[in-house]
Amino acid sequence: MIAQFKVVPIGRGESLSLYVAECVKIVRASGMKYQLTPMATVLEGDWDDVMGVIAECHRKVRSMSRRVVTSIEIDDREGSSNAMEQKIRSVQEKLPTK
Amino acid sequence: MIAQFKVVPIGRGESLSLYVAECVKIVRASGMKYQLTPMATVLEGDWDDVMGVIAECHRKVRSMSRRVVTSIEIDDREGSSNAMEQKIRSVQEKLPTK
Amino acid sequence: MIAQFKVVPIGRGESLSLYVAECVKIVRASGMKYQLTPMATVLEGDWDDVMGVIAECHRKVRSMSRRVVTSIEIDDREGSSNAMEQKIRSVQEKLPTK
Amino acid sequence: MIAQFKVVPIGRGESLSLYVAECVKIVRASGMKYQLTPMATVLEGDWDDVMGVIAECHRKVRSMSRRVVTSIEIDDREGSSNAMEQKIRSVQEKLPTK
Repeated sequence: MIAQFKVVPIGRGESLSLYVAECVKIVRASGMKYQLTPMATVLEGDWDDVMGVIAECHRKVRSMSRRVVTSIEIDDREGSSNAMEQKIRSVQEKLPTK
Repeated sequence: MIAQFKVVPIGRGESLSLYVAECVKIVRASGMKYQLTPMATVLEGDWDDVMGVIAECHRKVRSMSRRVVTSIEIDDREGSSNAMEQKIRSVQEKLPTK
Repeated sequence: MIAQFKVVPIGRGESLSLYVAECVKIVRASGMKYQLTPMATVLEGDWDDVMGVIAECHRKVRSMSRRVVTSIEIDDREGSSNAMEQKIRSVQEKLPTK
Repeated sequence: MIAQFKVVPIGRGESLSLYVAECVKIVRASGMKYQLTPMATVLEGDWDDVMGVIAECHRKVRSMSRRVVTSIEIDDREGSSNAMEQKIRSVQEKLPTK
């Protein structure tokens, strides 16, 4: 499955990149396939691996902030592999060449 | 912490209430505090309990549909208890009486 | 259509109820049907009305904070009226009586 | 501001790439800066431009499906320009070189 997530500390200042970087370090250490987008981090793996990494990111940011809002969105589709690339490619195949 | 979640089967027909009801049955069986809203289900508990229930709901709907999109939003705040009621009350106290 | 939204100032302190209350005042003044949940505000109306109210809430909170994250989710279904109540009722009809 | 959005038809089959492609065509025609990610489309522009494009995407998919769920997330920060690149760069600068 593919999951997109974001961990936002509330009341810790206007810049969030420090907290995103802490999460990316955890994601990298997991060895999972991921992509950093301007609005979230996208992961690919099974439920337990994905949720384990997100839980670790949440706890890390929560240790740095008294209030944290974490958003997760999961797209779980039967039989999909290489799903991140495949999803983008399926859209691009339906677009006229620029 | 408080968590809001929604489990949406893709490609299974226009009505979703059957799937929401399956999730509410799982939530009820857990004994956790919850609230059904027009757009999602809100739970209150610790990370493992909340995520355990959401994982069970996701798997249930996934067993009924080849593709499922699940959204989760967590609000985790230090020292909050009775958080669902408290959050609503804190807002209402700041509103002029109608 | 039904829309759920949330306007979160980043870096303005741990409590958010002040900002939610500002949004509820705007929603009330619009006369639209709404429901305050522990995680968001739910509105019912057509696209322009709903988006007009959310834009006003966003601008209000943005005037109080240098960075704002606003989340909106819209459920737009053909021919639905009294949709907030109807959605909840459709689920409840499929549940065993407690 | 930066906005991430997704328009999902409910009950129209398991594949969604056709609908995403319709949205990308609208985004391209707008001339706005955008990025397609595995889970959403990210736009950069002011409120009216961004919401105008998302409204057009929603209406297009709604014309192809009786029920549509559209999710929008906006990150609006004072004085940010080239925000999509800048957000990614700010994170990367805080990461150890691989």
